[in-house]
Amino acid sequence: MNPCDVIMKKRLGQELNREEIHAFVRGACDGSFADYQLSAMLMAICIRGMSDRETVELTMEMADSGERLDLGEIDGPTVDKHSTGGVGDTTTLIVAPLCAACGAKVAKMSGRGLGFTGGTLDKLESIPGVRVDLSARAFIDQVNAIGLAVIGQTGELAPADKKLYALRDVTATVDSLPLVTSSILSKKIAAGCQSVVLDVKAGSGAIMPTLEKSVELAETMVRIGRGTGRRFSALVTDMDQPLGLYVGNALEVREAIEVLSGRAGGALLDVSLQLGAQMLRSCRLADSADEAMAMLRAALEDGRGLAKLADMIEAQGGERRVAYEPDRLPQAEGRIDIAAEKSGYVHAIVTSDIGYAAQALGAGREKADDVIDPAAGIIMKKRLGEFVEKGEAWCELHVGARADVAAAKKRLAGALTLSDEPMAQAKPLVYRAID
Amino acid sequence: MNPCDVIMKKRLGQELNREEIHAFVRGACDGSFADYQLSAMLMAICIRGMSDRETVELTMEMADSGERLDLGEIDGPTVDKHSTGGVGDTTTLIVAPLCAACGAKVAKMSGRGLGFTGGTLDKLESIPGVRVDLSARAFIDQVNAIGLAVIGQTGELAPADKKLYALRDVTATVDSLPLVTSSILSKKIAAGCQSVVLDVKAGSGAIMPTLEKSVELAETMVRIGRGTGRRFSALVTDMDQPLGLYVGNALEVREAIEVLSGRAGGALLDVSLQLGAQMLRSCRLADSADEAMAMLRAALEDGRGLAKLADMIEAQGGERRVAYEPDRLPQAEGRIDIAAEKSGYVHAIVTSDIGYAAQALGAGREKADDVIDPAAGIIMKKRLGEFVEKGEAWCELHVGARADVAAAKKRLAGALTLSDEPMAQAKPLVYRAID
Repeated sequence: MNPCDVIMKKRLGQELNREEIHAFVRGACDGSFADYQLSAMLMAICIRGMSDRETVELTMEMADSGERLDLGEIDGPTVDKHSTGGVGDTTTLIVAPLCAACGAKVAKMSGRGLGFTGGTLDKLESIPGVRVDLSARAFIDQVNAIGLAVIGQTGELAPADKKLYALRDVTATVDSLPLVTSSILSKKIAAGCQSVVLDVKAGSGAIMPTLEKSVELAETMVRIGRGTGRRFSALVTDMDQPLGLYVGNALEVREAIEVLSGRAGGALLDVSLQLGAQMLRSCRLADSADEAMAMLRAALEDGRGLAKLADMIEAQGGERRVAYEPDRLPQAEGRIDIAAEKSGYVHAIVTSDIGYAAQALGAGREKADDVIDPAAGIIMKKRLGEFVEKGEAWCELHVGARADVAAAKKRLAGALTLSDEPMAQAKPLVYRAID
Repeated sequence: MNPCDVIMKKRLGQELNREEIHAFVRGACDGSFADYQLSAMLMAICIRGMSDRETVELTMEMADSGERLDLGEIDGPTVDKHSTGGVGDTTTLIVAPLCAACGAKVAKMSGRGLGFTGGTLDKLESIPGVRVDLSARAFIDQVNAIGLAVIGQTGELAPADKKLYALRDVTATVDSLPLVTSSILSKKIAAGCQSVVLDVKAGSGAIMPTLEKSVELAETMVRIGRGTGRRFSALVTDMDQPLGLYVGNALEVREAIEVLSGRAGGALLDVSLQLGAQMLRSCRLADSADEAMAMLRAALEDGRGLAKLADMIEAQGGERRVAYEPDRLPQAEGRIDIAAEKSGYVHAIVTSDIGYAAQALGAGREKADDVIDPAAGIIMKKRLGEFVEKGEAWCELHVGARADVAAAKKRLAGALTLSDEPMAQAKPLVYRAID
């Protein structure tokens, strides 16, 4: 099949058939579509869109472009979650142990930090000794043994997505519903779980620019996801400020431990519980949200959740006592307070700037081969609606030798909007559940 | 300027400013836009279009992307013509000598055959000894001395177009009004002529799929061309069958000689005269079409046109007597008649298939480094509306050692539509003049 014929068809806004979609996806893997042809096609898809049928087929072709993990050997209901990426968002490290404690088999492949968003793999690796590069065999065995594992991709899952994602990033074709949807779902399908809960972020730290677009993405992913024959559901959750107070790798592990220990709560716990409830219902361990919530709260309160986190740390090479003695996590040598330049109520936080500031301190990578400082990051002292005095610290930087403090401060300088008036009302944490 | 920002703006259908267009065109030359970014941008332009202001600026940036020829040293009114490409369309070799004989300075840079269309350079090179790779200096001197020169591009004219054209060809982004327009006009502007007559083809051998699209292209090119400050005009002419009866390089030179000698006429002569009249008016040597036509006919009848062709052949390294003794042109050893499979009136000819058949015989290139057989080609025996008997030859193949006769016959098998009914009426040769 001539690449130009396929590209022209989409350029004209026509629907591609399965064979044409197959040629495109295979072309991304074997080079029979050159990079410049792939990017022309990506642009045509961005502008012309895709029907649901096309998007389902694109997703399945991408899922089939490499290996597919067979989780059939796992004894019990498998469930996965996926977030579109946030800041101070360590829900996985809370909800995966809680769900495992409730009987779910949480077989999760995570990613690394990307741009201003954090990545669960980087957080796990900040725990001394913990490895995330398990084989598929070890992954399945661990899930069977303790109910959960969080690892990096094994083998070549959805290599077509890897290729297309890299091109989208440099051709202004990232935020397209069929492309985002097929990218996320294809990896989840290749990773083998039968139930997946999607956490789609909305707000100043989300990839989609408006709440409406986030809802549209969530609805599209659930609709397309079902077209592939798996159980997909989604929550649209708030990312108009960092979800937790801690931003950075070891810092977020510490906050997860604090939450699982019952010493911390707030938005991070609330969103984790809601995601967890959705996961338990999705894999049929609970019939209602109330029942699921009660199961999760019980596992939280009697320490079974924290014990599951300790199990996972141990199974993946770390020391289980870290879960009980979080001071054993790496800690930054330097602390720098960032003071408010005037008094006022916090009306807005540019969440992405908090993420970029943490990245500048060493918590994230600018280039793929940058080395992360596990201890670097930011602790937020204020949340939306709270009052801050002039000169009072609204956040605290945790800095090591490699931190670019000037760059971080520059990012933070415009990150806060203060007002004399109190905020009218708090935003919901969960905007929408799509089930 | 970040390429993604420029690409995104056009993806969203917004108008690019001069700085952004400059960044794109410069990026095509210096690699600051990678190929995959250029092609994403080309696709966005194809689908979203460009305003006239954008197209004028794109054209001028492309014209300025390399050298620009200064024809200021030429003494007299310079004029050029450009065809969008045809089959059996050797008007340049007729109209350039006739206009030169009437006092115009025809400083023309031509191209090579592309796909199913012929190229004037290939035709000229079929004349023993003739060279087309003159320096800019020799080009200007020749035009001053004898009034005409037809050569290949000197130096690097509009290198951005070369880069973008190659990408368009493989990304299904060829037929876009702003892209076709800027591609053609930028080269003409860089080549320095103040007056350019465009010959936009319509019909089964044209790049645009319908007459309406051909007219739209002609109107756009004239409108944009004027926006650049040069005198552009256009004729939309018929390419629903080969213009002349001869298709192939030496064959078309022969037909041009026959026409200039007064021994042949028909559509090829008529279109040449109309193009020539437009050229003489465009460079202000005639005030009206009638006056221009009378001047051209006089130059044809008294042999001054043929003498100018002889002058050019001689100036560019060939023997002038070829113009008077066309048997000196290369001739194919083999002749193969193609017979009609039934009787009927010729209602349609797939002109592009005639071109591709000639290409298969060696008259054109499939790949850039293919070697042309100057003698290869096809002589048409029938024109639209004429009656052909079953078994009668409707064309004759001229074949050499390298001809792929089977491929040519395959192309020709479906090229003719015959009907029992006479054709209702002949199509016009010139559909529209845009002045």
